[in-house]
Amino acid sequence: MIQRLCIIGVGLIGGSLARALRNANYVGEIIGCGRGKPNLDKALELGVIDRYTHDAAEAVIEADMVVVATNLRTIPDVFSVIAPSLSDTAVITDVGSAKTEVIKAAEQNLGAAFARFVPGHPIAGTEKNGVEASFAELFNNHRVILTPTAQNMSANVQRVREMWQRTGATVNEMTAKTHDEVLAATSHLPHMVAFALVDCLSSMDDSAAIFDFAAGGFRDFTRIASSNPPMWCDIALENRDALLRQLSAFENTLGELKMYLENKDEVSMLTLFERAKTARDSIEPSKQQTSK
Amino acid sequence: MIQRLCIIGVGLIGGSLARALRNANYVGEIIGCGRGKPNLDKALELGVIDRYTHDAAEAVIEADMVVVATNLRTIPDVFSVIAPSLSDTAVITDVGSAKTEVIKAAEQNLGAAFARFVPGHPIAGTEKNGVEASFAELFNNHRVILTPTAQNMSANVQRVREMWQRTGATVNEMTAKTHDEVLAATSHLPHMVAFALVDCLSSMDDSAAIFDFAAGGFRDFTRIASSNPPMWCDIALENRDALLRQLSAFENTLGELKMYLENKDEVSMLTLFERAKTARDSIEPSKQQTSK
Repeated sequence: MIQRLCIIGVGLIGGSLARALRNANYVGEIIGCGRGKPNLDKALELGVIDRYTHDAAEAVIEADMVVVATNLRTIPDVFSVIAPSLSDTAVITDVGSAKTEVIKAAEQNLGAAFARFVPGHPIAGTEKNGVEASFAELFNNHRVILTPTAQNMSANVQRVREMWQRTGATVNEMTAKTHDEVLAATSHLPHMVAFALVDCLSSMDDSAAIFDFAAGGFRDFTRIASSNPPMWCDIALENRDALLRQLSAFENTLGELKMYLENKDEVSMLTLFERAKTARDSIEPSKQQTSK
Repeated sequence: MIQRLCIIGVGLIGGSLARALRNANYVGEIIGCGRGKPNLDKALELGVIDRYTHDAAEAVIEADMVVVATNLRTIPDVFSVIAPSLSDTAVITDVGSAKTEVIKAAEQNLGAAFARFVPGHPIAGTEKNGVEASFAELFNNHRVILTPTAQNMSANVQRVREMWQRTGATVNEMTAKTHDEVLAATSHLPHMVAFALVDCLSSMDDSAAIFDFAAGGFRDFTRIASSNPPMWCDIALENRDALLRQLSAFENTLGELKMYLENKDEVSMLTLFERAKTARDSIEPSKQQTSK
């Protein structure tokens, strides 16, 4: 049970967490914190939070759980503002999509409280932003990855784990490095590829016809290119090293495929397609459908 | 009205066309032709065709409309087999995903009937194969592209146009070259990228974790990597020139994005993402949703 939960950044993720914990009767008071008054007023009106302040240092006072759910680039500032007023037993966590950089920022800015910072990342979201888009079931049957540091006491990791479990999520632990590689591969690289593909096509002479004749497969494939551009700039920059490695690996594979096509090397091309199909089918054996 | 329709290749596309025209009462007799006896027996049993033969030369006799719906690589052979027994007024069309090569094959193999060959491509399909997967509504509200040749009489183009309209499709005309560029961009390139991406990820050390943690956005993005590998080999080889151009253009855009990330050039990265989002949103203004 959390006595006083402080959520800094009451948007889709922060708001959904508050709603889920409230529904699970797992939280006493919920303090919201953020910059935008209309969003926080809305959060109050919706009953997502009990009260709010724009001052993060004030918001965390006597909170036993502090969740930093702002955008990635704001996190270091938030850490340095809250550090002096955190309670000695407060557990701090975040929801950022790139962990190595967030951990560095925590180490530099949280002082003694760094030992009680348990990095986290819920693998959930929609394209919508703001507390109005939040809902209690967002994390249900989704994964949350925790990347505990060497300084974390297991009791504090367990506090964060249990909080997420109460939202219906499955919690896994891995190193920050593995997290960043896995997310670079499964999320950040695909977003870069989708943005680049759509941008490439939109600059072509036939782009009007191209988008006019786009079939279902194209829509599915490029849907993630509709994602929030500033958020994805942040994510790409924060997970730059892992993402650059994945981009290079992908460039190599694409270059190989192009070479097979140039050489009319049907056997190698077929082998690559079949390997990809087998891998893709393994993650979703029952829902394969596409358009040409 | 078609008196006698001959469909060579009674699979998803050929079977669905037969069903749709039957439902529209737009066809007299339907003759099926193909290599596999079980599939043709099934087509008979389902009432998709009225009779069948494995001999394409026999199948086209006295047909006023001949639809070649085999896989791309079989088309040239089919043309040379049917050419001698086509009626003098038969209109011939196809459903291939790459038009320039099919037109070349028609010119080389159809003889005098080449003037009555109206190239076509319905932009519809699912991942399933065979007549059992066919259904009358497949083309409803989908597009069919015709790429008439200089030799085509407009009356024959009109015959093919009307056939497709009776299935509920919207018919557009463009040059074969434009068709191949547009399809390379909206369909063939995305498939290559999806196959390459999944193959790249599946060869990584963390691939088990990668596919385990793949979220909804990744599933949507990579769904087309589950497509039929031999079919996509054929398509890539048949539309090789246009596809290689598109692959090069995409490599350039991806390379630019990678350079922005290497240089931490946030402004250029944001501009690219925003341009892509605007283009993507323009094709589907009301259904934008994704996961991180």
